[in-house]
Amino acid sequence: MDDDVPLILTLDDSGSSASAPLDDLDREELPNENGGSYDVINDASSPAAGDCCAQQSSTRHNWEMNYQEAAIYLQEGENNDKFFTHPKNAKAVAAYLFAHNHLFYLMELSTALLLLLLSLCEAPAVPMLRLGIFVHATLELFALIVVVFELSMKMRWLGFQTFIRHKRTMVKTCVLFVQFIEAIVVLVRQTSHVRITRALRCIFLVDCRYCGAVRRNLRQIFQSLPPFIDILLLLLFFMVIFAILGFYLFSPNHSDPYFNTLENSLVNLFVLLTTSNFPDVMMPSYARNPWSCVFFIVYLSIELYFIMNLLLAVVFDTFNDIEKRKFKSLLLHKRTAIQHAYRLLITKQRPSGISFKHFEGLLRFYKPRMCARERYLTFKALNQSNTPLVSLKDFYNFYEVVGLKWKAKRNREHWFDDLPRTAFLIFKGINILVKSRVFQYTMYTVVAVNGIWILVETFMLQGGNFFSRNVPWSYIVFLTIYGVELLLKTTGLGPVEYLSSGWNLFDFSVTLFAFLGLMALAFNMEPFYFIVVLRPLQLLRLFKLKKRYRNVLDTMFELFPRMASLGLTLLIFYYCFAIVGMEFFAGVVYPNCCNTSTVADSYRWVNHTVGNKTVVEEGYYYLNNFDNILNSFVTLFELTVVNDWYIIMEGVTSQTTHWSRLYFMIFYIVTMVVMTIIVAFILDAFVFRMNYTRKNQDSEEDNGIVLEKEISREEVVGIIELYRRNSAATETTQLQKIVLQMDKYGQTSTLFLGRRSRTKSDLSMKMYEEEIQEWYEEHSRKEESQSPLQEPASASNSSLKPLSLRQRSQTVI
Amino acid sequence: MDDDVPLILTLDDSGSSASAPLDDLDREELPNENGGSYDVINDASSPAAGDCCAQQSSTRHNWEMNYQEAAIYLQEGENNDKFFTHPKNAKAVAAYLFAHNHLFYLMELSTALLLLLLSLCEAPAVPMLRLGIFVHATLELFALIVVVFELSMKMRWLGFQTFIRHKRTMVKTCVLFVQFIEAIVVLVRQTSHVRITRALRCIFLVDCRYCGAVRRNLRQIFQSLPPFIDILLLLLFFMVIFAILGFYLFSPNHSDPYFNTLENSLVNLFVLLTTSNFPDVMMPSYARNPWSCVFFIVYLSIELYFIMNLLLAVVFDTFNDIEKRKFKSLLLHKRTAIQHAYRLLITKQRPSGISFKHFEGLLRFYKPRMCARERYLTFKALNQSNTPLVSLKDFYNFYEVVGLKWKAKRNREHWFDDLPRTAFLIFKGINILVKSRVFQYTMYTVVAVNGIWILVETFMLQGGNFFSRNVPWSYIVFLTIYGVELLLKTTGLGPVEYLSSGWNLFDFSVTLFAFLGLMALAFNMEPFYFIVVLRPLQLLRLFKLKKRYRNVLDTMFELFPRMASLGLTLLIFYYCFAIVGMEFFAGVVYPNCCNTSTVADSYRWVNHTVGNKTVVEEGYYYLNNFDNILNSFVTLFELTVVNDWYIIMEGVTSQTTHWSRLYFMIFYIVTMVVMTIIVAFILDAFVFRMNYTRKNQDSEEDNGIVLEKEISREEVVGIIELYRRNSAATETTQLQKIVLQMDKYGQTSTLFLGRRSRTKSDLSMKMYEEEIQEWYEEHSRKEESQSPLQEPASASNSSLKPLSLRQRSQTVI
Repeated sequence: MDDDVPLILTLDDSGSSASAPLDDLDREELPNENGGSYDVINDASSPAAGDCCAQQSSTRHNWEMNYQEAAIYLQEGENNDKFFTHPKNAKAVAAYLFAHNHLFYLMELSTALLLLLLSLCEAPAVPMLRLGIFVHATLELFALIVVVFELSMKMRWLGFQTFIRHKRTMVKTCVLFVQFIEAIVVLVRQTSHVRITRALRCIFLVDCRYCGAVRRNLRQIFQSLPPFIDILLLLLFFMVIFAILGFYLFSPNHSDPYFNTLENSLVNLFVLLTTSNFPDVMMPSYARNPWSCVFFIVYLSIELYFIMNLLLAVVFDTFNDIEKRKFKSLLLHKRTAIQHAYRLLITKQRPSGISFKHFEGLLRFYKPRMCARERYLTFKALNQSNTPLVSLKDFYNFYEVVGLKWKAKRNREHWFDDLPRTAFLIFKGINILVKSRVFQYTMYTVVAVNGIWILVETFMLQGGNFFSRNVPWSYIVFLTIYGVELLLKTTGLGPVEYLSSGWNLFDFSVTLFAFLGLMALAFNMEPFYFIVVLRPLQLLRLFKLKKRYRNVLDTMFELFPRMASLGLTLLIFYYCFAIVGMEFFAGVVYPNCCNTSTVADSYRWVNHTVGNKTVVEEGYYYLNNFDNILNSFVTLFELTVVNDWYIIMEGVTSQTTHWSRLYFMIFYIVTMVVMTIIVAFILDAFVFRMNYTRKNQDSEEDNGIVLEKEISREEVVGIIELYRRNSAATETTQLQKIVLQMDKYGQTSTLFLGRRSRTKSDLSMKMYEEEIQEWYEEHSRKEESQSPLQEPASASNSSLKPLSLRQRSQTVI
Repeated sequence: MDDDVPLILTLDDSGSSASAPLDDLDREELPNENGGSYDVINDASSPAAGDCCAQQSSTRHNWEMNYQEAAIYLQEGENNDKFFTHPKNAKAVAAYLFAHNHLFYLMELSTALLLLLLSLCEAPAVPMLRLGIFVHATLELFALIVVVFELSMKMRWLGFQTFIRHKRTMVKTCVLFVQFIEAIVVLVRQTSHVRITRALRCIFLVDCRYCGAVRRNLRQIFQSLPPFIDILLLLLFFMVIFAILGFYLFSPNHSDPYFNTLENSLVNLFVLLTTSNFPDVMMPSYARNPWSCVFFIVYLSIELYFIMNLLLAVVFDTFNDIEKRKFKSLLLHKRTAIQHAYRLLITKQRPSGISFKHFEGLLRFYKPRMCARERYLTFKALNQSNTPLVSLKDFYNFYEVVGLKWKAKRNREHWFDDLPRTAFLIFKGINILVKSRVFQYTMYTVVAVNGIWILVETFMLQGGNFFSRNVPWSYIVFLTIYGVELLLKTTGLGPVEYLSSGWNLFDFSVTLFAFLGLMALAFNMEPFYFIVVLRPLQLLRLFKLKKRYRNVLDTMFELFPRMASLGLTLLIFYYCFAIVGMEFFAGVVYPNCCNTSTVADSYRWVNHTVGNKTVVEEGYYYLNNFDNILNSFVTLFELTVVNDWYIIMEGVTSQTTHWSRLYFMIFYIVTMVVMTIIVAFILDAFVFRMNYTRKNQDSEEDNGIVLEKEISREEVVGIIELYRRNSAATETTQLQKIVLQMDKYGQTSTLFLGRRSRTKSDLSMKMYEEEIQEWYEEHSRKEESQSPLQEPASASNSSLKPLSLRQRSQTVI
């Protein structure tokens, strides 16, 4: 088996072997480092003559190269990296490997975060975190240098040409350059100038490997923009028409401050679109002529109730379409990656499939942490036929199978099956009890009673001193009940099974918190009193009762990662606007600042004495300022919620110029875009899931993908033998354990269960089942027509594009 | 042909013959009026012996009955009336016919409107429309008596048993009863008591035949309620949890009025859900501790941004599903109706189809206005085979074909083809000009320039006296250009073709209005000055330029009827709430009414003198009251828009009890339901249309359903002959005209075009194409299994349920 010759040979590399645990052969450093680093290895077609041993070691070395590259292809497929960024030579592979591990990613992320967090300390800084200019500028320079280092690694991996072609990286480079210069200028001048470009720091975060979801969101937002802008124009157009109309109709009324000029008319109708000033803007004209309400009703009906919904509809529609296309392209990309990897793993001798030896080699690079047992199980799971080879058709399922977590199927049903008889009976009883409906409904009743209790208790408190030192007895009673329940469940089901359910985990943590709260109360730990307050969360358990809620909450949990990434996207927009806002509006708003404007009341802060008492009239709006980045974020959130945002806008405007309104209006439109996308996303995800449930009503109860595989004793022994021959006996300890286990119970085979949670991709696969086949066919047709290079000889893989480094390099050079 | 014997005989009726124009036979009044009015006509299976003439006239009479009943079936199918309301005997048919014509419908509608409008005049009335109690109570009694009459007609048609079973009618009867008693009480006491039941008057409107769309909307709303309520509970649950949390966290802060009691905490979080009090509710706690904003951000993120969107998603999903099921059931209902009608129209002799004679008889009852030519064309259009009979399969297309408007295909291309040479050339030139792109884009440019002109002009005016007596010259110039364009287009395309496009119609009316405005300016007619103001609407024409706008605006026009019915539904809810509001809150709010409440400022009306000037401080909110039904509607609209609705709520609450809040909160939830449905509807309709467009990208340009049929001269002559034999020669004038026309041009046949606009049903037909076949099969399977009565003898109609009046009556009795 060792003298297998790969069908396609990849480059000889020196870097990759460093991370190959089995590569115990001596390495030859290649002397020529730049350009033509392609080592001329004897091609597969060359006669297998000469020194047998040297041949063998060379072949082996080649195989390591091939495994490495196949693993890289598969990673690219998974991460949706385009293949034009595939490393082109040995040095590039080294750089690629350097730049593709979690340490590097973490460095990327922390540098980006450091840069972003710097705005906490730069003037205008959060008071507690203020740093000297020298300190924060030095920190910034340091972070920027790290980014330079990252970029240089990337350049090394991509090569200069590809580096230039990669748009995102180029933008990053430019921003880096600007930031660098500005940081040096700040250091030299020892004072901060107007640095709006700080808003661009976000790009460092967006470019992080870990922020892939954010990048996808941004792309989706930009793709949804054209139709959005179209409808937005329609909206603005009607706004202008109504502004002119309103100006003509209402400006003769001198008590109406909203329509006295065309500009006011426009601004107020813009604000009216957000309904923020609604009855007020109508009132002066309504007081004069009741029929003037028709103008406002028509305006709101058209703009708010029709066009705004149309906006959502258009975005939703586009979103839907984009989601599907994205899924399609990702699927095809993965397929192509698998094809590339497959070509690198088959041998000249047996071109119809991948043997376990090579598959194992691939996994060594692709998932170094995987143990020998899991590798073999993955291979078995992929292998649908009974031959020892995995065909291309089977190999296509690689991504679905490789994520499975394998476990030997338990022979015992409960954790206590091995205990002595008496204990077993006790635990069995508990098990039956906690699984009974009576127990469950009793607990629901307790929770409900607890809920009502808390409500009534809180209602009775009415402003008394409710953080008294003595713990209320009801609290202790309910907590005891929950504690007993937790104990029963843990013992009855076993800790592992108990905690494997999300709901139980939730119960557990809430009960734990409640217990901590009790502790806090008992020991008078004031700062922890808020934990007490979390008690009502117990009530959430009641929602397990109804199926729809379970559905909704499950969907909620499924959506959570995506929602979080959307939230992060929103935060990135916030950051940009916060920086711009701080640069222009910091310190602009203060108590009693706007006494000449129409919103004076909201900014008033008067401290006058009536009789003996000091009465403080507070408008509080001066708190909504841009004085530091945290304040800015809160202010921007208020602007997002939209209500009364015009007070903030008018306040700032009255202290600056009326061009400031542009900032607020643009922010409104941007958040409108993002929010519409969020709504469209929730709609889409929910409707998708609902449709999915409707389509698969029978198989509804399953929670994840489960696969079963049986391994016989002989197979395990064979694998151990194989590893031993490869002098990698250290990896077989687990396998040997299995053999021992089997011998102990006298089994000839063990059943393993592979399990993973269901992803959106799995759902989509099922939803688009019919279309997917069409896509595949279309895709392979396109490929065939695109690659006239294909040799008709390799008939078994006729749908494969024979793209390997070697071949490509031959066509390039 | 006259001695055709119907396969199934319907009852002999006396009433229906009154409206049958061809029924010149003597009628026999049936002596027994109640119950067993089924006349024993010799069954189709009885031997056709006896007096030939009597037999014939009897057969003919039978045929008229059958036509009548078939037409009723088809109407029921179209209107989605359930078949259990099908008239069961001759008297019922008479009552059915009486209650099913536009005069009766109009009476229904006007009575309902009268009852609704009465609330304008009843105390608290609109000042100008106040009527004495005696007057409006008498009017009400009169209207109610008309309703009684309507109901009695319905009872006569339905029969007592069915009447009782028909829920909507029963509810109406009960409401009628209550209203009647109350109206009499008012008349007797000569004073109005608290009449909340007036809110139920809506049911009279909802029950009108013309308000079918409103009924459907209401049904859809009620069907969407269960999932909606589930999510609403989730929303309220989180609200309660956060209210308790908020109370614990913020009530120690004595300067925070929003969380000092649990009730306040709840109410303010409810208001916060609508964002109406947003930054304000946060400000006191935010001023004390900046981190308290986390509470509000988390609350809004969960409630507003997540659960509210989930609500939309759930409703949208349900809506989608309901729409599809509705379409399916309507489709199957129509199909069943067609089957019923078909069974009544085929003859014993030829059971494989309907001959033209019988089809014509059906149409005489189904569409009395249709002329003989159209009837024949409809028949031809239905008849897909070349036999003289319409088979059941063909007859299934009845509803699609019967709505077509038929026109002889013009031989001439333009309206001026028949004019003399010179005129022809001139008009041809104009035609080419107005159809040219240059002309179109010139006009767009003119419109754009006009738009900018208006904008600049308005901007320059800045509060001057813009309704000056002299007409601005720019206005005249642009109007002249538009006038010339209109003239050119009308002459170039011909008035008919010009006005057949909706966009041209729009241009025309806007130009006309502008011209009227000019007149108004020229003759100093002040009240019409608003027409001038409509000028900017011209700019809407610019939206023809882009395809997406055309799509959106077309969709808008298609949605309009449905939107209008949804608006009407909303108005009905408004009416109910307005009545309740008026009964409880009329006269409660007035200037300076709420000086003790937190919203005192908004209701303040102070008239004080500063120096020499009188300064009026107006809060205006006292105008948002429930003093009469018009004011109530405006107030409710303001509540719908939601912004600052708590000011209205708190104002009213401070003058009444705090239970009043319930009214406002329930109103918010109800409008939320309706609004969510409206959004879901717009989303659904738009996405549906987009998918449709995507699916049929090639046939995108067509505007409606078009069918072509050719009729030869012989056919026409044959038809004329047929009518003549039936002594209905008066109906053939149009046919004779066609013959003359053909003779004149020497044609042997004429081509006719049938045209109608595309309905949602057509789109759905195409969208669900694949599923529809399944539905049909499932439906016919179900029917077969349900009707063991079916005789296997009638093999040709094996999928038919042999449900005729006769058979049903036999199985019932």
